[in-house]
Amino acid sequence: MSTIIALETHDVRFPTSQTLDGSDAMNPDPDYSAAYVRLVTDADDGLSGHGFVFTIGRGNDVQVAAIEALRPHLVGREVEPLLDDMGAAWDLLVHDSQLRWLGPEKGVMHMATGAVLNALWDLKAKRAGMPLWQLLASMSPEEIVAAVDFRYLRDALTEDEALELLRAAESGRGERTKALLAQGYPAYTTTPGWLGYDDAKLERLSKEAVADGFTQIKLKVGNDLDEDRRRLALARHAVGPDVCIAIDANQRWEVGEAVEWVQALSDADLAWVEEPTSPDDILGHAAIARAIAPIPVATGEHMMNRVMAKQFLQADALQVLQIDATRVAGVSENLAMLLLAAKFGVRVCPHAGGVGLCEAAQHLSMFDFVALSGETDGRFIEYVDHLHEHFVTPVRIEDGHYVTPTEPGAGTEMLASSITEYEVTA
Amino acid sequence: MSTIIALETHDVRFPTSQTLDGSDAMNPDPDYSAAYVRLVTDADDGLSGHGFVFTIGRGNDVQVAAIEALRPHLVGREVEPLLDDMGAAWDLLVHDSQLRWLGPEKGVMHMATGAVLNALWDLKAKRAGMPLWQLLASMSPEEIVAAVDFRYLRDALTEDEALELLRAAESGRGERTKALLAQGYPAYTTTPGWLGYDDAKLERLSKEAVADGFTQIKLKVGNDLDEDRRRLALARHAVGPDVCIAIDANQRWEVGEAVEWVQALSDADLAWVEEPTSPDDILGHAAIARAIAPIPVATGEHMMNRVMAKQFLQADALQVLQIDATRVAGVSENLAMLLLAAKFGVRVCPHAGGVGLCEAAQHLSMFDFVALSGETDGRFIEYVDHLHEHFVTPVRIEDGHYVTPTEPGAGTEMLASSITEYEVTA
Repeated sequence: MSTIIALETHDVRFPTSQTLDGSDAMNPDPDYSAAYVRLVTDADDGLSGHGFVFTIGRGNDVQVAAIEALRPHLVGREVEPLLDDMGAAWDLLVHDSQLRWLGPEKGVMHMATGAVLNALWDLKAKRAGMPLWQLLASMSPEEIVAAVDFRYLRDALTEDEALELLRAAESGRGERTKALLAQGYPAYTTTPGWLGYDDAKLERLSKEAVADGFTQIKLKVGNDLDEDRRRLALARHAVGPDVCIAIDANQRWEVGEAVEWVQALSDADLAWVEEPTSPDDILGHAAIARAIAPIPVATGEHMMNRVMAKQFLQADALQVLQIDATRVAGVSENLAMLLLAAKFGVRVCPHAGGVGLCEAAQHLSMFDFVALSGETDGRFIEYVDHLHEHFVTPVRIEDGHYVTPTEPGAGTEMLASSITEYEVTA
Repeated sequence: MSTIIALETHDVRFPTSQTLDGSDAMNPDPDYSAAYVRLVTDADDGLSGHGFVFTIGRGNDVQVAAIEALRPHLVGREVEPLLDDMGAAWDLLVHDSQLRWLGPEKGVMHMATGAVLNALWDLKAKRAGMPLWQLLASMSPEEIVAAVDFRYLRDALTEDEALELLRAAESGRGERTKALLAQGYPAYTTTPGWLGYDDAKLERLSKEAVADGFTQIKLKVGNDLDEDRRRLALARHAVGPDVCIAIDANQRWEVGEAVEWVQALSDADLAWVEEPTSPDDILGHAAIARAIAPIPVATGEHMMNRVMAKQFLQADALQVLQIDATRVAGVSENLAMLLLAAKFGVRVCPHAGGVGLCEAAQHLSMFDFVALSGETDGRFIEYVDHLHEHFVTPVRIEDGHYVTPTEPGAGTEMLASSITEYEVTA
């Protein structure tokens, strides 16, 4: 047995607003940041668990304060009972009734819980000597189901149905693992498409994306219809007819406005329309999806919890679910969302980019391929080429695919030198 | 012109868990708390603006940290441009793109914004020398609409429709003001019904409620069906056939479970069923409402923003909207929710109790009666007899009604002595 002896936090901020990396219709000048947590035990294995919440600058200190609020639950506690039963870890953190009031299960407090749960998953994977995707894919259906909170899901997905889905994917795990290790997992890139980039940069980066083997790129839209039309034409000219182009409005529109705007762009052959309106508007997304079909609606990077995921699926309000590694309560809640998507037969294309989101998200999609949906058709993990150099096990991209990671852990460990260099102190 | 020279915060916690006041199926031992804010200007009028977020204990420090994160927007800024255009105040705080990422518009960061907006509304009312309800009722329809953010609402309620609703209520404002001052506003009481109270206390408090003129009480349920049935029978015996009894499950059930549980209690003549399941589950509430009709579904104390309110109304997922003074972004967002309820013809019965929620909520219902819905039929403001003694202008209840307050302000100012006595320091 070993004991958690420290919960360390760090307020880490990168000055990305200086180059307009990450600029979109709602976020003109983000400073990509991480509210970072490290769990330290007294085991002599030298291993610690790392997690974080991705934010875009101001308020990263609030997010750190929320992580700090979880310290009394963790420091001084034996870690094995949590690592051996991640459902118990969830209960400990998510079901603190007083902290729950601050959400419930949404926003700053919920994301803090996610960072800590992810740190525990990271530690569990490191102790197992496996990358997280492989650890998850090696767990039995019963163990996976025990790690998930089915509260509020059971009218759409029961424990038994989840077990069935996982059992159905048990055969073939070995083959798919081999295929994954050989070929990696498809990626698409948002690198060319930030709103703050000029035409030359958009064109150059679009061509580079094709040369690098990507089969889908994404453009930010939503500030000006004529500009969007012009930039889409530029991008299409650069990538040619065979590469897909998705667009992302970052919540810019009203429901009716979204329909009109997308219809005005529909000759651009859109792969999907992302975040057309408020991420909370299930019924609005459903109305948009009906109106612009067959163009798919994609959303999820601001989807606050599994109860929203359930309803988006029940209402046919999205055709592409973009789970986010740090928006919800970590790997544990993302397992619930993957199971829901599998139940409803909807493809999952994780949101990534930011700080460390690519490093974290890849494990979720890879687990899904090996042990749940068994598919990569029409599925991609988002890729943006920022800030990977700050991680101990940065993602690698080859020929438009994520190279399957083999290092132990969840990918969430930042270099100590980067933390030191970019940490903000009050 | 005057300038905001300080934003003071206080972490104030009352040890209510010692008496099980406030105990329910999800919250066994709350310590009612306030993350409190005071805005100080350099004007020589001696007036300051007071607001707070109600929490139930742990994490109140996180909520305070979120309020602190808004200081740079306020301190050093001229206050009149904000007080004269509360829509501009909203934009300043809610549309900070970096802070918005932490919600968006939900949870800890959004509630912090609400506390600060409420402090501004308090200051505006004090400067006008009016209680908040009267200030709001004296604003023109155009001024009210300008204070509201219609983003993401326009598929259900446009600015023009809101203007129409407010203009239609302009005639009769004077008469209704007189009636309000003479009769107050109906209340119901939750005082008898906490789960932690024994039978004798439930019975005694139920009888006292009737003697005090209340025509509706509310019981906490959801832990044990037989117990609920027994306690409902006890309460019915105590209050007689003419007093209404509502029940509150505090999110305890799955969707199907809620339907079965309520159907098993349906011979108890229930006034409404409150928070049957996750507050995020619009489609679940709609299914429950269809199944248990004509028993109304009530929810709202955890409704995180106006986008959720819109959808609950669009989906017929509630019959009683329980707005909360500090869960959303303050008076400004509650105006949006009152307008939505008026558009959909749904009655509003604010959540109150906690710390200072009665003091704050009464102004919203009273404004609604005078200047918007013009009705009190079937409408009540919740009342719980806790912690009022800590406020400068505590609510007064007479014959089951809130006595209409006439003191200037929003009711949100806590006694300095109470802050000193109950403040927690790190």
